[in-house]
Amino acid sequence: MTVKTETTKQHILNTGYELILSKGFSAMGLAELLKTAEVPKGSFYHYFNSKEHFGEAVIADYFSNYVELLDTLLVQTPGSGLERLMNYFERWLEFENGRCKAHKCLIVKLGAEVSDLSDTMREELLKGAELITAAIAQCIELGIKDGSIDSQNSLSSANTLYHLWLGATLMSKLTQSLEPLQSALNATRSLLKK
Amino acid sequence: MTVKTETTKQHILNTGYELILSKGFSAMGLAELLKTAEVPKGSFYHYFNSKEHFGEAVIADYFSNYVELLDTLLVQTPGSGLERLMNYFERWLEFENGRCKAHKCLIVKLGAEVSDLSDTMREELLKGAELITAAIAQCIELGIKDGSIDSQNSLSSANTLYHLWLGATLMSKLTQSLEPLQSALNATRSLLKK
Repeated sequence: MTVKTETTKQHILNTGYELILSKGFSAMGLAELLKTAEVPKGSFYHYFNSKEHFGEAVIADYFSNYVELLDTLLVQTPGSGLERLMNYFERWLEFENGRCKAHKCLIVKLGAEVSDLSDTMREELLKGAELITAAIAQCIELGIKDGSIDSQNSLSSANTLYHLWLGATLMSKLTQSLEPLQSALNATRSLLKK
Repeated sequence: MTVKTETTKQHILNTGYELILSKGFSAMGLAELLKTAEVPKGSFYHYFNSKEHFGEAVIADYFSNYVELLDTLLVQTPGSGLERLMNYFERWLEFENGRCKAHKCLIVKLGAEVSDLSDTMREELLKGAELITAAIAQCIELGIKDGSIDSQNSLSSANTLYHLWLGATLMSKLTQSLEPLQSALNATRSLLKK
């Protein structure tokens, strides 16, 4: 029974995540979500108090998976600090289910739209962004120690890199091409190795 | 009569721009726009075929003003290439009518939300982003010539800077602080002068 319950909740979260990636948050109707997920309204309200509460849960679920990815790529995978970081950023250009991985980023997709609409969703996104920046900074520290990265201040370099990639992702949504991400990859290499 | 006509259209555009900055595009209802602008529905449809067409017009109007600003700051204002660029980016942190200027940027506010919803709005935003990047690149060229800027490739440096500032603006919406923009300002100085 617990398994079924978990599965239904997770299924609604996954469906909502995909819909949000295509349409954004405001344009995703609750009726559309329920229809796509093939669950009754009662099921939704069993797990979530409101659409906003659901939005928070989608973001939290996204980052709980993302934290594992960061751990795998930036902590567990062998290699110098520079190699691990480049490997992490190269993945932003890869495709998965027809979508470039950068375009699966909820911070880019939702950040500007919801930051003025919902404080709780904004805070959930911010927590995620801070986790990512901290993991990048930690990997830069590693690279400074192993001599693969040249940086005076790991946290400020991490902020610069992360801002660069958020902006490049936004531009690649406008150009509908990987070019801005490719340009960010080149800039990352030269920023870390100057 | 022409003056009145122009004024009504511009008034609807200005009201829509402010509403979009607060709520995004999907969450801005047409009824709300008409009520805030205090114009009848007929007036709106006299100038715009649809909400999407209105969105395109708001973006085009925004960039027609922005192009003048770029010309003033990056072409007409005296100073080295570096001084002009730093002056331009410093303005992103200034406040106007209670809103930080960076947060008045339609590319950050709308880019991710509308790029998957409307090709015409996406293309209008892209045209604007390309104008800005080209103006930054031209100013970097000037700085290379006058010796104030060190860059191997003005267009690729312009892309990096612009991506950095888009991402920092997005993060400053999440943190509700100027810190990410301040960090982008420091990074800009060191990117251009290394």
